[in-house]
Amino acid sequence: MKLGVCYYPEHWPEEIWADDAARMKALGLTTVRIGEFAWSRIEPEPGRFEWEWLDRAVDTLSGAGMQIIMGTPTATPPKWLIDAYPDVLAKDAHGRVRNFGSRRHYSFSSTTYRRESARIVEAMAQRYGLHPGIVMWQTDNEYGCHDTVESNDDDARAGFRVWLKERYGDVGSLNTAWGTVFWSQEYRSFDEIDPPLATVTEPTPAHVMDWRRFSSDQVAVYNQMQVDVLRQNIGAVDTTHNFMGHFTEFDHYPVAAQVNVSTWDSYPLGFLEMAWWDDQTKLNHMRTGHPDFAAFHHDLYRGMARAGRFGVMEQQPGPVNWAGFNPAPLDGMVRLWSLEAVAHGAELVSYFRWRQAPFAQEQMHAGLNRPDNVADQAYHEAAQVAEDLAALGDIGNAEQADIALVYDYEAHWAHEIQPQSRNFRHDRLTFSFYSALRRLGVNVDVISQHHALDGYKLVLVPSSPMISESFVERAKKSDAHIVAGPRTGSRTENFAIPEALAPGPLQTLMGIKVALAESLRAGAEHAPSGGDDIIWREFIETDLTPLEVSSDGNGTVWQNADLTYLSAWPTEETLIGLVSDLYDGTPIVSKPIEGGLRIRRRGGYIYCLNYGPEAADLDSVLDGSLAGRYVLGSSLLKAGELAVLTAK
Amino acid sequence: MKLGVCYYPEHWPEEIWADDAARMKALGLTTVRIGEFAWSRIEPEPGRFEWEWLDRAVDTLSGAGMQIIMGTPTATPPKWLIDAYPDVLAKDAHGRVRNFGSRRHYSFSSTTYRRESARIVEAMAQRYGLHPGIVMWQTDNEYGCHDTVESNDDDARAGFRVWLKERYGDVGSLNTAWGTVFWSQEYRSFDEIDPPLATVTEPTPAHVMDWRRFSSDQVAVYNQMQVDVLRQNIGAVDTTHNFMGHFTEFDHYPVAAQVNVSTWDSYPLGFLEMAWWDDQTKLNHMRTGHPDFAAFHHDLYRGMARAGRFGVMEQQPGPVNWAGFNPAPLDGMVRLWSLEAVAHGAELVSYFRWRQAPFAQEQMHAGLNRPDNVADQAYHEAAQVAEDLAALGDIGNAEQADIALVYDYEAHWAHEIQPQSRNFRHDRLTFSFYSALRRLGVNVDVISQHHALDGYKLVLVPSSPMISESFVERAKKSDAHIVAGPRTGSRTENFAIPEALAPGPLQTLMGIKVALAESLRAGAEHAPSGGDDIIWREFIETDLTPLEVSSDGNGTVWQNADLTYLSAWPTEETLIGLVSDLYDGTPIVSKPIEGGLRIRRRGGYIYCLNYGPEAADLDSVLDGSLAGRYVLGSSLLKAGELAVLTAK
Amino acid sequence: MKLGVCYYPEHWPEEIWADDAARMKALGLTTVRIGEFAWSRIEPEPGRFEWEWLDRAVDTLSGAGMQIIMGTPTATPPKWLIDAYPDVLAKDAHGRVRNFGSRRHYSFSSTTYRRESARIVEAMAQRYGLHPGIVMWQTDNEYGCHDTVESNDDDARAGFRVWLKERYGDVGSLNTAWGTVFWSQEYRSFDEIDPPLATVTEPTPAHVMDWRRFSSDQVAVYNQMQVDVLRQNIGAVDTTHNFMGHFTEFDHYPVAAQVNVSTWDSYPLGFLEMAWWDDQTKLNHMRTGHPDFAAFHHDLYRGMARAGRFGVMEQQPGPVNWAGFNPAPLDGMVRLWSLEAVAHGAELVSYFRWRQAPFAQEQMHAGLNRPDNVADQAYHEAAQVAEDLAALGDIGNAEQADIALVYDYEAHWAHEIQPQSRNFRHDRLTFSFYSALRRLGVNVDVISQHHALDGYKLVLVPSSPMISESFVERAKKSDAHIVAGPRTGSRTENFAIPEALAPGPLQTLMGIKVALAESLRAGAEHAPSGGDDIIWREFIETDLTPLEVSSDGNGTVWQNADLTYLSAWPTEETLIGLVSDLYDGTPIVSKPIEGGLRIRRRGGYIYCLNYGPEAADLDSVLDGSLAGRYVLGSSLLKAGELAVLTAK
Repeated sequence: MKLGVCYYPEHWPEEIWADDAARMKALGLTTVRIGEFAWSRIEPEPGRFEWEWLDRAVDTLSGAGMQIIMGTPTATPPKWLIDAYPDVLAKDAHGRVRNFGSRRHYSFSSTTYRRESARIVEAMAQRYGLHPGIVMWQTDNEYGCHDTVESNDDDARAGFRVWLKERYGDVGSLNTAWGTVFWSQEYRSFDEIDPPLATVTEPTPAHVMDWRRFSSDQVAVYNQMQVDVLRQNIGAVDTTHNFMGHFTEFDHYPVAAQVNVSTWDSYPLGFLEMAWWDDQTKLNHMRTGHPDFAAFHHDLYRGMARAGRFGVMEQQPGPVNWAGFNPAPLDGMVRLWSLEAVAHGAELVSYFRWRQAPFAQEQMHAGLNRPDNVADQAYHEAAQVAEDLAALGDIGNAEQADIALVYDYEAHWAHEIQPQSRNFRHDRLTFSFYSALRRLGVNVDVISQHHALDGYKLVLVPSSPMISESFVERAKKSDAHIVAGPRTGSRTENFAIPEALAPGPLQTLMGIKVALAESLRAGAEHAPSGGDDIIWREFIETDLTPLEVSSDGNGTVWQNADLTYLSAWPTEETLIGLVSDLYDGTPIVSKPIEGGLRIRRRGGYIYCLNYGPEAADLDSVLDGSLAGRYVLGSSLLKAGELAVLTAK
Repeated sequence: MKLGVCYYPEHWPEEIWADDAARMKALGLTTVRIGEFAWSRIEPEPGRFEWEWLDRAVDTLSGAGMQIIMGTPTATPPKWLIDAYPDVLAKDAHGRVRNFGSRRHYSFSSTTYRRESARIVEAMAQRYGLHPGIVMWQTDNEYGCHDTVESNDDDARAGFRVWLKERYGDVGSLNTAWGTVFWSQEYRSFDEIDPPLATVTEPTPAHVMDWRRFSSDQVAVYNQMQVDVLRQNIGAVDTTHNFMGHFTEFDHYPVAAQVNVSTWDSYPLGFLEMAWWDDQTKLNHMRTGHPDFAAFHHDLYRGMARAGRFGVMEQQPGPVNWAGFNPAPLDGMVRLWSLEAVAHGAELVSYFRWRQAPFAQEQMHAGLNRPDNVADQAYHEAAQVAEDLAALGDIGNAEQADIALVYDYEAHWAHEIQPQSRNFRHDRLTFSFYSALRRLGVNVDVISQHHALDGYKLVLVPSSPMISESFVERAKKSDAHIVAGPRTGSRTENFAIPEALAPGPLQTLMGIKVALAESLRAGAEHAPSGGDDIIWREFIETDLTPLEVSSDGNGTVWQNADLTYLSAWPTEETLIGLVSDLYDGTPIVSKPIEGGLRIRRRGGYIYCLNYGPEAADLDSVLDGSLAGRYVLGSSLLKAGELAVLTAK
Repeated sequence: MKLGVCYYPEHWPEEIWADDAARMKALGLTTVRIGEFAWSRIEPEPGRFEWEWLDRAVDTLSGAGMQIIMGTPTATPPKWLIDAYPDVLAKDAHGRVRNFGSRRHYSFSSTTYRRESARIVEAMAQRYGLHPGIVMWQTDNEYGCHDTVESNDDDARAGFRVWLKERYGDVGSLNTAWGTVFWSQEYRSFDEIDPPLATVTEPTPAHVMDWRRFSSDQVAVYNQMQVDVLRQNIGAVDTTHNFMGHFTEFDHYPVAAQVNVSTWDSYPLGFLEMAWWDDQTKLNHMRTGHPDFAAFHHDLYRGMARAGRFGVMEQQPGPVNWAGFNPAPLDGMVRLWSLEAVAHGAELVSYFRWRQAPFAQEQMHAGLNRPDNVADQAYHEAAQVAEDLAALGDIGNAEQADIALVYDYEAHWAHEIQPQSRNFRHDRLTFSFYSALRRLGVNVDVISQHHALDGYKLVLVPSSPMISESFVERAKKSDAHIVAGPRTGSRTENFAIPEALAPGPLQTLMGIKVALAESLRAGAEHAPSGGDDIIWREFIETDLTPLEVSSDGNGTVWQNADLTYLSAWPTEETLIGLVSDLYDGTPIVSKPIEGGLRIRRRGGYIYCLNYGPEAADLDSVLDGSLAGRYVLGSSLLKAGELAVLTAK
């Protein structure tokens, strides 16, 4: 695995570039990402390019032995471009312009912006495409960040109509698919259809779903455009895009399929603060991040990556500047997060950023070096990671896990469009499945519902309303036991209730029918056995006897041959019990983990990482038959400490 | 009382209409409401009508013996109409268009839409006005739903100016009435006046009050237009409109006076979740609704209906789709809610809807039948209600109650315009009065302040700032004892403090003057004896001795001959004590009810309905002298159970 | 000290003016403010002035012996002016017009409005400038109220560009200063720069800071225009503007420097309810206001006033109408608040308003008289204050205090722009410093960081990121010990991190460097010794040994010679301990005050005011060596009571 760093030569005096490059190299870093916000320096006037400074930066870094990851600068079009082409800017639901002045100020649908983006990407690729120092190209930066997937502009409106025409052929089919007869919304032509925005009350759910699919597709179309331009100019050099954490607003699978390596930006502390966890969890892990945050995203992005090639393009090095509260990581966490990436098969961990910027938006965002160029805590931990990697030597390849977990972007949108319970979130439920698996010490592959199921012993589908017939076919042919959570199979492709009701295509597999679903507020009596503040329960018609029942006698877990269905939002404890029963693979832990310790096996090594807050004793957790020699650390791990053992 | 159902033939294949109709009839249903969202099917292109399908639907239903309630489809103008006449759409306070894509996408003030509405209503009325199968016409659907009473469009602005000119004659009178000299807002002509929207800070309260009166009047003008068109074409057939629960945004009294029957849409669970009750109340009644929700609205709509003719046009049959949490009703509740309507004198209970729709916005809204056409819980309960009605036989007419409660839409607006306490709400206070009365087992008529007071022994006015001289005259002439709550009489018609201060015209009745009013946050010491999280207290100048005082010695209840004034927001317990002292009518209960049991006498029957959560023993509650023979149920009622007895 | 009142002759029948004036005089009032909302009466049509009524009002009041404070009526331009010049109206961040219909409906940047304002001010000043009854002119009313400092209109946009050009000269300097290279925001000319509003995500902090400086400057430019027009017409008569409480949106220091007397509007109860205090504090002081609210603002406005001349232009007399809850003051509080102003050196306390208005927005706002013209509680207390003043006789001049507290508007904006902790507020932290000082009974001057430091023994800088070199120079030359709180010196003038890191210029004074800062959510373990719900801590590089450390051993207080630095958000207790150690001036209290008693020495008197909720015994609090004879009150003070003693 390579270590890298993000660097902005344009932010610093040219005199220090060489020293920066030398220190990167000396620290044990291999890659350096540059360029992704530099458009105004590269093309300061329309059509006038200033390449010289970037040539020198590339040569300086490359000359010092650093491998360059070059970012296309399209996340920040310069002001002159916006002034010349105001149609580049996105608009909000009410049609209000989202102004220049920060970043990501463009609509994915803007035909002007697609042309201008192709132009700048081509110019860069022609200039540097064959430069030997460049090992990878990153398209744009963090697609969708700041709520930018959707835009209510003219191009988007026109594009949506074309997209719908391509999907449905004739408008009658669309009317049928959407059920527009309801509330007299029948369209006579595609030209009558607007985005479902700023309506008087909830718009047609199928209309919204198609708008979200269209908006998501615009991201993929836009990225493919960049990849195409690059490919014509960069030979066989790798491409990537840096995705984000907890981000659900576009379908990542097709975009990941367009690039060679899927990378993501890992900010465990900021996302702990901003996500759904309760206050106590946020306090317990304020300096470590949630024990499963980085791991989940490693598995997610590895699962969608071509040939499983993935990495971390931006690794949090210290406090960030964008959460409600911004603690410093516990000492050791930058190292621990890096080793977690190793344990999951990453080929890159790149720290963001080389040096904390003293100006502009991110001046409170730490780096490897402080603004005064003194090495900061993360610098020393990165050095330690380089040593760790040397100590580990050959870390082997990531192997397919026995267990697959289905992550489904459309499912997330479906529950947002019709939540039916204020708190029902697909990402949260899926994460809860993932945590249960992690506490059992098993390896997990995160996959889409369209992924092959061969080789899996257990496939978990937390909640996929639009589960496909094709999935059911693959499930039947596989040896895997399928566990499907509530609302799975509850909708057709067109966001309607299936003719035979939920769980739709799963009915043929197990003979249950969801007669009724309800959601209750937290604190309700006779609720099923869990769900924290989320109570979702379904009433099942079946000849089967439930495996588990709620306190008022309603079945919550059902099993028939190779399929288990959960008719209630499950607790982590329920999931742990269920997987323990269903999975007979090699054990790693002697009992489910309590607390923040996490363990993953990769190749010949077992990685043990303690996210705290309590200390952990590996001797009491690891299955005795497995534990071998300690290559790093020892059996007693304080919060923030790690150990790596050989596996017997 | 008739049972009915809401049905959308346009949603279903024509092949099943006949079966649907036959099953309705077999279930014991009499009426079926259709048509109210079918405009795009009736007139798919401008001016081209397709009547044939609707002819067949009407004939099929009617042929099966069902009586049809025909809805005018104006709540959902089709897209072609909106595209042809964009001025139909309403605008929000900032002038932003509220787009097509859901329902109620029109401004009540739009002259174009009034013309187009008259056109479609006339076309339907000419086609079906004399069809013998149609027993009632419903205008539009749920006026005002989704915050649609107000619109800041050009027609509304122009209409407001005309309305003001009619009200005030000359602009000088308006300036005086509004007090525009304050903050230099004097107008030189009506043409200078805009809606009081998107202002820098609070606009003039009298300006806002008149805007709300105008907006409310637009609803009445619009409805009258529909009624007029109908009346010219439908002979003597009844008209109705389906009002909503907890809805205060327009004055319902004049609209109710325009139609023959006042109906409303009863969704006890959704409204429990969305209204002001605390979490424990919401948990206690999550499957039953608040024990007084349906009863209050029955009394409200009966009170405003011509000749007291009212009913439920839409009765919740199972979980709905629009609250934050959507539980299934407790088994038996659909029956219980239906019998509550019987107890209050309804002439119709119509279930919404015949069959759950598998597509579009309401696919999570239950019906009598599931989407797969299997009878759902509500179907069986509706059948039970049909049996119950048969068992009861002659249920008699609803009689005038001894006690009247004044519900005052303008009062609600007045407190919204100048709350003076974050939590002070007219609807909430009025509901609290109502609950106190219900816990005493007494019958209540809900009336406007303009209603005749003859025959009442007790008239309660929870909080009517603009109580009229006319009310005081009627009160003097009546035999009723008047109980007036805080802020009653505190404003003139023009939203000013009366010259002699509050309680304004009531001063002549009892000789008190409100010297000062204050609101305190919850938890304040020395607060008056109640008010939960609402503390409102007034300091009174008077020669009277208070009946009750707060812990710091401030009078909270005052009485003089036939008038009682409450100078603090009262608790339910205070109200129960007060009414117990003041009312000497026939007792129904031996002591105030604790818990969710509710009792109402109508005709020769006593209806006992347990909204839970605890079981109730009627023997310990009913006044011994009254209880007769059990026609339905028995004395021990679990949550959700009911009994009907003959009254001795 | 003079007592006064605010009066609106245009609101009342002319017949009662003379009686009003006579009663004012009889009550002991000296001044009466009029005119500030009367534009539509003065100029009812464009260019047509009606002076006669105002002539009569002035003569009536003046004739009765009242001294008139005349307000310019520019806070409420009339409707005809807005209709003629719609560009007067301000626009919100999205460019939406903020409509006519309340007050302050203008943009400070509007060139049209500057012209029209000059016109009306000149007309009034020419009419009344030399009238002997007028003793002061007030410009406009409460600049900035209702979020009106910023406006996104065309004039503001154009003005901002000019302002930037003046500040930076060439656009390259601006690019460097703002760091626009970050995110490709480099500008090629000033004409490309827009206000940093409605951007996709956070705009450049230096861009926002300059926008706020520009917007603040517009207030000063606007006020200077009025002062200039007045000065040409009113001879040597005093000018003033009435500022507000807790208001931070523009820099008050330059505006205060333009007028002769700085006055402010004191509403202790409304601001208690709306500010940051916790629920218990709000309950404790709901009828008294926070014990330090009025005192702090007295010291703030005295500190910025020319020659220390300040006063209260509007004193709350009873419940107000604009907070979430609006209690009546405890009896005695109007007197107590008035004496607090005396204790701080005010030259005026003017009650708002003479009589409660029965109409328009403020009809729930109390006055000295009720709407029915009966004297209200505040009337009687004002009479008592007049007696108190007579009893006190010569109250002496306000002297410079030994201790200065720096209040820094730009610092407030800086923390709003980059809070880094959800709860970090400059005004709140500064107030907490002030409360600590008050509990020690010491006098405090509130000053800007540009103020002379001569004569101070202790200067407290709660949190000034942009502390200047000039301040450091003055500090060095002074004898004062400087206490600087967290984040002081953490930014340059251009909102960048100083080259040598925080505390910037303070490093030369004491040899510490802030290596890292973090913010934690409430409840975090190992937090420093306080901060309520705010945890901010910094890690210090230094050779010094900390004076105090947090529970995990991190230094929180550092001292070197004459400088103390707090590297964590301090509790009041920490501050009290610190100041007790550092300050060796004459003691007033024998130990820090617990509870709501407050004490201030001015001239030969000691003022003791009990804000409750508990009673206080002065004998146990006052330093024995000081207490002399009681001129008012006695040693035992119930909540709301006061005493004034001679000082030994």
